[in-house]
Amino acid sequence: MKAARWYKAGDIRVEDVPECQIDEDYDVKVKLHWCGICGSDLHEYLMGPIFIPVGEPHPVTGEAAPVIMGHEFSGEVVEVGPNVTNVKPGDRVVVEPIVCDDTCPSCKADKPNLCKNLGFHGLAGKGGGFAEYTTFRHKFVHKIPDTLPYDKAALVEPISVGYHSLEAGGFQPGMTAVVSGAGTIGLATIESLKAMGASKVFVIQRKSVRQEYAKNSGADAVLDPAECDVVAEIMRLTDGYGADIAFECTGAQACFDQEVAAVHAGGTVVVTSIWERGVSFDLNALVIPEKKIVGSICYCGDDFDDVIRLMDEGKIPANGLITKKVALDDIVSEGFETLTGPEKKKQVKILVSANPDELDA
Amino acid sequence: MKAARWYKAGDIRVEDVPECQIDEDYDVKVKLHWCGICGSDLHEYLMGPIFIPVGEPHPVTGEAAPVIMGHEFSGEVVEVGPNVTNVKPGDRVVVEPIVCDDTCPSCKADKPNLCKNLGFHGLAGKGGGFAEYTTFRHKFVHKIPDTLPYDKAALVEPISVGYHSLEAGGFQPGMTAVVSGAGTIGLATIESLKAMGASKVFVIQRKSVRQEYAKNSGADAVLDPAECDVVAEIMRLTDGYGADIAFECTGAQACFDQEVAAVHAGGTVVVTSIWERGVSFDLNALVIPEKKIVGSICYCGDDFDDVIRLMDEGKIPANGLITKKVALDDIVSEGFETLTGPEKKKQVKILVSANPDELDA
Repeated sequence: MKAARWYKAGDIRVEDVPECQIDEDYDVKVKLHWCGICGSDLHEYLMGPIFIPVGEPHPVTGEAAPVIMGHEFSGEVVEVGPNVTNVKPGDRVVVEPIVCDDTCPSCKADKPNLCKNLGFHGLAGKGGGFAEYTTFRHKFVHKIPDTLPYDKAALVEPISVGYHSLEAGGFQPGMTAVVSGAGTIGLATIESLKAMGASKVFVIQRKSVRQEYAKNSGADAVLDPAECDVVAEIMRLTDGYGADIAFECTGAQACFDQEVAAVHAGGTVVVTSIWERGVSFDLNALVIPEKKIVGSICYCGDDFDDVIRLMDEGKIPANGLITKKVALDDIVSEGFETLTGPEKKKQVKILVSANPDELDA
Repeated sequence: MKAARWYKAGDIRVEDVPECQIDEDYDVKVKLHWCGICGSDLHEYLMGPIFIPVGEPHPVTGEAAPVIMGHEFSGEVVEVGPNVTNVKPGDRVVVEPIVCDDTCPSCKADKPNLCKNLGFHGLAGKGGGFAEYTTFRHKFVHKIPDTLPYDKAALVEPISVGYHSLEAGGFQPGMTAVVSGAGTIGLATIESLKAMGASKVFVIQRKSVRQEYAKNSGADAVLDPAECDVVAEIMRLTDGYGADIAFECTGAQACFDQEVAAVHAGGTVVVTSIWERGVSFDLNALVIPEKKIVGSICYCGDDFDDVIRLMDEGKIPANGLITKKVALDDIVSEGFETLTGPEKKKQVKILVSANPDELDA
């Protein structure tokens, strides 16, 4: 089958590889429809390896680079192993691409996203979504309703990252929220906040078409740090009190600092972004007003099923998040290069497919 | 009356000042018995002003330096205003030394410790505990039982800081905990953890008599970073998993880093220390294992009454925390100088009194 494999930074190759086969563990085989290019895929392309095992095999998959990429995918089940009861051939599905060891206390507590050996299908080896087929463990495979199209279903994974961050931060309906950055995770967070009853969502985003994307996703106000004092503006918009909660989705120190300052005493800043360098930080700004900083990673529990339902009900419309669709053969030139080139700010999610049913549609 | 007033860093004077009088707001007059010297008093002595208003008056008290110091005190009510019903002359009391404006959303939510104009009686003006008398607002005055002596009662305030940090961090009985630093707040935190059912308490403390103090307060293990890899040791002591929660009570980056590393995925680091400089920090260490950093300041709600009860029941024994008692006249030479001099590591809490009943006892 055809698949896109990462060899090293700047070197992703679309090539023929042996078609994946189900085994005792990887017991659901999926014919892939759409798979999104994620920010972490871009990090691997530009400056990897980050999550991809090189030389030393991943402790769970036993594989190392070259690995098939892609972890935000939808598809149709074509074969299952003898112990699989939750899905059957013909089912339309998405997959939680969590690679974990099942034995650590976090896994046992049903938080595989906190596994000590956490990896991702599509980064850690043993298959991925930029291919014709992949196989995975049945407990991470979720059925989607017929009313949810395959392209939107490929957004379930990134939207679940935003959705999960609300619970990680203790979000409650009626809260005022700040979101920094209107990329995929930022937009997913905005849509999740509106779906779950945020009273107001203020978005920090510099001037670009992403300001429009933020409004389209439900932002009540979009604040440009080049044009206003965003902390003062958030104070004004919250009657001088500050926001209840903030979500850092950029990986930029300036946004982090603004969010810590913009939440009120006792408030929370949730960080979902991955950082290329350290931050410097005055802990007194946390201690004296008793604020919290909370990390959030992936999803767990009911996150995927909740997001599938909210998307299907239209409560998370996710309109406008898919900005381009490309064939697997063109993934580097039309996908990775577009997302790292001069037009990158216009893009949110580029979907990739090797499936003729989708490409010809 | 006699009182110790802060003029500037290095300049605290014991002098005669007009005896304080009750008024509409400051409607309980207390004859002081004992008042502890706090770490923040030392910061003001060494490098203040930090909390003390200088030039510009404090927005709530309307006063500026020179101010009477001392906020960890016990005493006897000698006079009350006409609207006071919770205490009467003759009552033995301690005081939550919170100065707040009553009007901000935090104050209205019964969290005056998060008031935007937070100050402290004994730092912000309008009196303090290093004196013969002080007056304060009746809602912050708490009765103590006859079985709790005045000297131990002066520890209620700092112990409440440690006790409050457990709730701030979401502590639950049965958890394993790390505490860095066996100064007053560290020891208060250890004693609170043991009283509230921590399964194990591991203390990070360099070699000094404070290691003995930590054991005396209930530490299950005391780890010296000069003698072992404290993170590896905490991993070993928790079956390779990591601790559930940690409490940073030193203000040192090395301890903060160790605690972030020593809690397991999903774990929490509570910071009660005040910082003289910023920290540099890799936020990925928080995001990927979904850890939390939580600031904790002062106390609120039932903290004082809980601590009074736990101390009176002997569940927080607080034995050995008082290491010296001095007369108000000697507060600088025998108090501040001892706590900032070569013998400082031997000291935990030095209590000060101008009350002949205590000094002659």
